[in-house]
Amino acid sequence: MGPGPSNPYPEVAAALVRPVTGHLDPAFLELLDETCERLRQIFATTNALTLPLSGTGSAGMEASLVNLIDPGATVVVGVNGLFGERMAEVARRAGAAVVRVDAPWGEPLDPNALLAAHPSPTLIAMVHAETSTGVCNDVAAVGAGKADALLVVDTVTSLGGIDVRVDDWGVDVAYSCSQKCLGAPPGLAPITVSERARARLVASPRSWYLDLGLIAGYVQAGGGRTYHHTAPVTMVSALHAATGALLDEGIDAAHERHRRCGQALQDGLEQLGLTLFAPVTCRLPQLVTVVVPDDLPAGCSEADIRRKLLAEWGIEIGSGAGQLAGRVWRIGCMGNTARPRNVAALLAALGEVLGR
Amino acid sequence: MGPGPSNPYPEVAAALVRPVTGHLDPAFLELLDETCERLRQIFATTNALTLPLSGTGSAGMEASLVNLIDPGATVVVGVNGLFGERMAEVARRAGAAVVRVDAPWGEPLDPNALLAAHPSPTLIAMVHAETSTGVCNDVAAVGAGKADALLVVDTVTSLGGIDVRVDDWGVDVAYSCSQKCLGAPPGLAPITVSERARARLVASPRSWYLDLGLIAGYVQAGGGRTYHHTAPVTMVSALHAATGALLDEGIDAAHERHRRCGQALQDGLEQLGLTLFAPVTCRLPQLVTVVVPDDLPAGCSEADIRRKLLAEWGIEIGSGAGQLAGRVWRIGCMGNTARPRNVAALLAALGEVLGR
Repeated sequence: MGPGPSNPYPEVAAALVRPVTGHLDPAFLELLDETCERLRQIFATTNALTLPLSGTGSAGMEASLVNLIDPGATVVVGVNGLFGERMAEVARRAGAAVVRVDAPWGEPLDPNALLAAHPSPTLIAMVHAETSTGVCNDVAAVGAGKADALLVVDTVTSLGGIDVRVDDWGVDVAYSCSQKCLGAPPGLAPITVSERARARLVASPRSWYLDLGLIAGYVQAGGGRTYHHTAPVTMVSALHAATGALLDEGIDAAHERHRRCGQALQDGLEQLGLTLFAPVTCRLPQLVTVVVPDDLPAGCSEADIRRKLLAEWGIEIGSGAGQLAGRVWRIGCMGNTARPRNVAALLAALGEVLGR
Repeated sequence: MGPGPSNPYPEVAAALVRPVTGHLDPAFLELLDETCERLRQIFATTNALTLPLSGTGSAGMEASLVNLIDPGATVVVGVNGLFGERMAEVARRAGAAVVRVDAPWGEPLDPNALLAAHPSPTLIAMVHAETSTGVCNDVAAVGAGKADALLVVDTVTSLGGIDVRVDDWGVDVAYSCSQKCLGAPPGLAPITVSERARARLVASPRSWYLDLGLIAGYVQAGGGRTYHHTAPVTMVSALHAATGALLDEGIDAAHERHRRCGQALQDGLEQLGLTLFAPVTCRLPQLVTVVVPDDLPAGCSEADIRRKLLAEWGIEIGSGAGQLAGRVWRIGCMGNTARPRNVAALLAALGEVLGR
């Protein structure tokens, strides 16, 4: 119940031990095509270029930026947490002139500030669900006002847990990860790219491994399946199974399950007398940040509390990250972990360990 | 029996379905440390910075180059196949002034030509076992004469199948993949970096995801385990099991098994009247290239032969790549696939399908 990985959906185990096939085996290509189609449904998009990248969520971030940034391009980045900071740094390394729009950690970004930051940016980049703070940023408002800019959105912690509507919101590139609300192990970065963004892909991006033009030549059935790199067939099989489980449940039903579990978790934490960090108006259901209380049991640091939960109760919760290190805990309720029984177990264990 | 993925060692299946833990869980960190130590043994190195990168072999190539190349740096690249070509392209995108040293596809690189190509290159890059041609290049000779240059070596197809002696040969950076002679599924790139190379890492490489300085801060026990990205815990567990199986057998015993299976395969192919593409003096045991014969059965293309092997016999072999497309087949005998029974099955099936 940390900020990820979550527990995989049960269907994933069988998928992981399927025989390993070649990355050009027709049986694997069919499974890959199905996985891409499932991702389209979950991203709520018709984007042809929708696929699982061969790296973790951070590889998705890097691919999104490095394929759209020519040296000197102006990139507006919203920063209200660790992953906004990371986007700014990745864009800088890709050669961008970065225009930061900051908000305090724990508050949402101001969409109008993002839109007003530069008259004609190449792209605007923002995080939907900030994993470091538990805050949800308003993507739709930025998409509605983006004008000629491209909009790149980090949906690492949101996809599969709360509404992500790529096409309706005017998102040009969204990326995510496999190990949070999608319920597969870590290792893949689902990504989707609009036709508008595709038309502006850099011809020869600095990264060869993450070159979306080359990767499209392999992944897309119409592209002739030109070999780029060896697809991680086992992990793709796991993601295929996890997305299948999610769609069998239904996207709306899965969101509702995350909402109910998140609400029960937040209520229970407040009943323990704990203070939640993110304001209720922009608080994520699937990842809650809790202020570390001043009155920890004698001799206990916040890290000791986390160690006890893991060692004695088999429950992981996350530490604070970046400027929130030592100040908050992060409790995830994502993917197959988002079950009432897990909420109940965490609340019981935390109450016991904190002596409340 | 294509050029990879191979069949995983049987121990891998159990490792893949272990419960998914956090990337900072002490149990996972112990498994990660053991995996790094196993990789050191297999690379024959004492390099502290030895780890599985979170991407496929091509990510290992990109990490090796992008972390050592400042824009304008001179990089000598040996090119006698598709993966040498790829190294030259990745180095170019990293901003290098690339000095190519070509040899015909199917012949080995000339170590003296590599050493004489430039008086003071930043680094020399070469492929040990060329997956596109089945040719083995002489790494030790280049290492012995490299002077102040760093030596970066692609061991994607060699590691675990034939001798790779990073320290003895004077290799500064070697990278590989998980899915060939190491016998795990595809998705990870083992990499090792000498202290000499480490002292010359670029401060802020163009890639954030593959920044070895940042990654070292997480992977190395002494580095405080600073979070960089979420480690692909399931795949690391698989690599842990595969390298364990390899070391239980013994590195020399595994090499001898690859040698014997490779010899039996080559002998059998010649007994079928087929011509091997790579000269015997530099021919790899674990990956053999076979010239597509002129007298294929009536109405059969070389692709039809491969399709029949897969559909009717359940055996994959690889097509030719790059300038060898349509001219050769590539037959792998790597990792857990390197067993006499598989050689016998392939030879029987190929004889049948070719009508020989």
